[in-house]
Amino acid sequence: MMNTLTVQLLMTGNELMSGDVIDSNSAMMAQQLKESGISVSRKVTVKDDMQMLVDEITALSRTSDVLIINGGLGPTVDDMTAQALATVMEKPLAEHPEALAHLQRWCDQRGVALNQPNRKQALLPQGIDIINNPVGTAVGFTGHHNQCQIFCTPGVPSEATKMLSDEILPQLIQRLPQDQHTKVSRMQVFGIGESSVQRLIDEAFPEWPDDIELGFRAAMPLIEVKLTTSGQASHERSQKWQQRLRQLLSAHIIGDNQATLAGEVVGLLQSREQQLTLAESCTGGQIASMITSIAGASEVFEAGFVTYSNAIKTQLLGVRENSLEQDGAVSETVVRQMASGALHASGADYAIAVSGVAGPGGGSDEKPVGTVWLAWGDKQKLHAQSLYIPGSRRYFQHYVAAAALDLLRRHILDIDETPRYIKERQRPAN
Amino acid sequence: MMNTLTVQLLMTGNELMSGDVIDSNSAMMAQQLKESGISVSRKVTVKDDMQMLVDEITALSRTSDVLIINGGLGPTVDDMTAQALATVMEKPLAEHPEALAHLQRWCDQRGVALNQPNRKQALLPQGIDIINNPVGTAVGFTGHHNQCQIFCTPGVPSEATKMLSDEILPQLIQRLPQDQHTKVSRMQVFGIGESSVQRLIDEAFPEWPDDIELGFRAAMPLIEVKLTTSGQASHERSQKWQQRLRQLLSAHIIGDNQATLAGEVVGLLQSREQQLTLAESCTGGQIASMITSIAGASEVFEAGFVTYSNAIKTQLLGVRENSLEQDGAVSETVVRQMASGALHASGADYAIAVSGVAGPGGGSDEKPVGTVWLAWGDKQKLHAQSLYIPGSRRYFQHYVAAAALDLLRRHILDIDETPRYIKERQRPAN
Repeated sequence: MMNTLTVQLLMTGNELMSGDVIDSNSAMMAQQLKESGISVSRKVTVKDDMQMLVDEITALSRTSDVLIINGGLGPTVDDMTAQALATVMEKPLAEHPEALAHLQRWCDQRGVALNQPNRKQALLPQGIDIINNPVGTAVGFTGHHNQCQIFCTPGVPSEATKMLSDEILPQLIQRLPQDQHTKVSRMQVFGIGESSVQRLIDEAFPEWPDDIELGFRAAMPLIEVKLTTSGQASHERSQKWQQRLRQLLSAHIIGDNQATLAGEVVGLLQSREQQLTLAESCTGGQIASMITSIAGASEVFEAGFVTYSNAIKTQLLGVRENSLEQDGAVSETVVRQMASGALHASGADYAIAVSGVAGPGGGSDEKPVGTVWLAWGDKQKLHAQSLYIPGSRRYFQHYVAAAALDLLRRHILDIDETPRYIKERQRPAN
Repeated sequence: MMNTLTVQLLMTGNELMSGDVIDSNSAMMAQQLKESGISVSRKVTVKDDMQMLVDEITALSRTSDVLIINGGLGPTVDDMTAQALATVMEKPLAEHPEALAHLQRWCDQRGVALNQPNRKQALLPQGIDIINNPVGTAVGFTGHHNQCQIFCTPGVPSEATKMLSDEILPQLIQRLPQDQHTKVSRMQVFGIGESSVQRLIDEAFPEWPDDIELGFRAAMPLIEVKLTTSGQASHERSQKWQQRLRQLLSAHIIGDNQATLAGEVVGLLQSREQQLTLAESCTGGQIASMITSIAGASEVFEAGFVTYSNAIKTQLLGVRENSLEQDGAVSETVVRQMASGALHASGADYAIAVSGVAGPGGGSDEKPVGTVWLAWGDKQKLHAQSLYIPGSRRYFQHYVAAAALDLLRRHILDIDETPRYIKERQRPAN
């Protein structure tokens, strides 16, 4: 992708340098910029130190068309971006009337008095333009130095995101040539690793075109596969290659854009006006939590059971005591009974049941930590499958919850193909 | 904190510059280093571009005692750290026998053949020292240039974390003077905002000592409050100020170090050999999921109910139909009946019940989105309280789940003081 603007980022804050806060703002900014056809060439991060800030702003403004500074606009003594920029621009700090009015409005709306620390946020380099902040107290501001346009943005992620998309990006896009529009398409993929996707693509398409950029983002347990193209002419070709990718990855594709497993399952059930119930042991409510994080989940999900103990599995779901004794709680027999019991107790159309050994304790030679049995389906047809997912408790629970939703998704969609992870995620024979 | 070593970080990768991946490695590194008394002065991030890498390594090695490079050690063509360092050091790339042996062992253990892309990971600047990687294929390596010791580390977070703690930090600590040990203490706080904590501290302790560094990290919905001191003499004073902070924040402190609300509740129940049950409507399994993410949760949690619909509240928990009709599902009457019903059905000692309007739909004038009723307690004493948590569905669910666990924690500990959020999180009177 060609860049006609050289854009650099300066991220500031002791909390970024100490590692107390993970910098998500620069990724958000890079992503928003990239989707408008603007790439970031370099990013520098420094702590709240006046001399370092002044030096970096000076150096970066010499080598950029656009410099976006993030952080240091708050009310505390640590917040020194305005002073640093004023020093670089050789302007005094002055109370900016619009910034002050914004702060006053903000306080009025919340029925609180404008205090001295907040008032400091209106002290900006004299003559600078402010950037509106609809979601916070700190206004942004922008000015020029050394031919470079400098934007100062707040550190609070929600405020920075809104200011970039609503105020800064429109200004930058105006500076780009008309033909340089960029198209990004994404698919969310589950159950196949990044390196396996890359290998499949290398094998199937040794001549992958240069002007269609392929990217991966691991968003455990999904992978996002992203195609980026620039210019009008290449859109049709991008469509063609997207289609080829779809055929290659087939049922491992959960959906486009920001699709999630839970979102897809909720959507499928909504369109069918059907309902799901859950009987969770080792995932302990995580599948329910994923489903109910989706707005509108209440239409398709009425009842979930978190049944950790054997007694509760029997009492709530009607799992037979002798099955628990003979086969153990982590067994095909028991997950099938859990699923049937949940269907019966809830009256739902579909059920998922999971029982496994999340660890770190509770494993045995026969059923080591990482072993799980899943059952899924409806009254007509229940499937069951075991997987082996060694690793941390957290990883195990995440992966099992995702696999459970994926297996139900495949069942509802009547997909026959066996997912790769059923073959790959098995305990190796000794 | 004094630094006797100037440490800079160079983070590499197209995925970092495009924003497809959020860089958590540099925060992890800075935090590990800081807790050993070493601060990072500056961090530069560039994409996978040979010339930029060579330029940055050259520039950074001139101004650092230690340069840690992260990323670019993998098997693909994007991975060019070894080549860039070889160029800077004016050494050829050569197959490193120990690195190759490591790769061979890795493949043997997994029963896969060593392929050509993997073999590339053994091509390192000639004569360089390797750093062991117990958890992945990419070995690290370290060499000197311009008086600067350069460490190259893999981009996979788990691998980078282990390599830093086990291999690199011990080497760096040896280079620090003996008296420069650092002590960090942390407390996790819930139900009081960062600015409120800061204001309380400013008011109570206008003369907060300079050598005790106070830091905050917002880890929604908790806040981490961190005290950092260096040198032997100041430890006692740090203890004293910690004690004062504890008195000031009192019951809003959940615990020390990495304490979590769910972890504290599980711990309290374990030590009392008591059990908890949950009846969740609007949080949809999130509280269960938080509890069961803690290892050992099965000792204290046997049964959870996710009851979205009215019918299921009646069927599973015995909520009376006329209460649902008269007071609605989001009411004191109903959450009290949900909690009692869950206690009865599960035989547990404690219960939490929540019912609210998570949104975006389902709100009314009387009960707008953000309204929630919580009940918590035991058979002897059930409390109930409403809160108003407007915002996104995600924020609402997170906050309500956390408040529910905090309220139960206070009940178990017999804390009488009313938490600030009960006063602050109410719908303003019109």
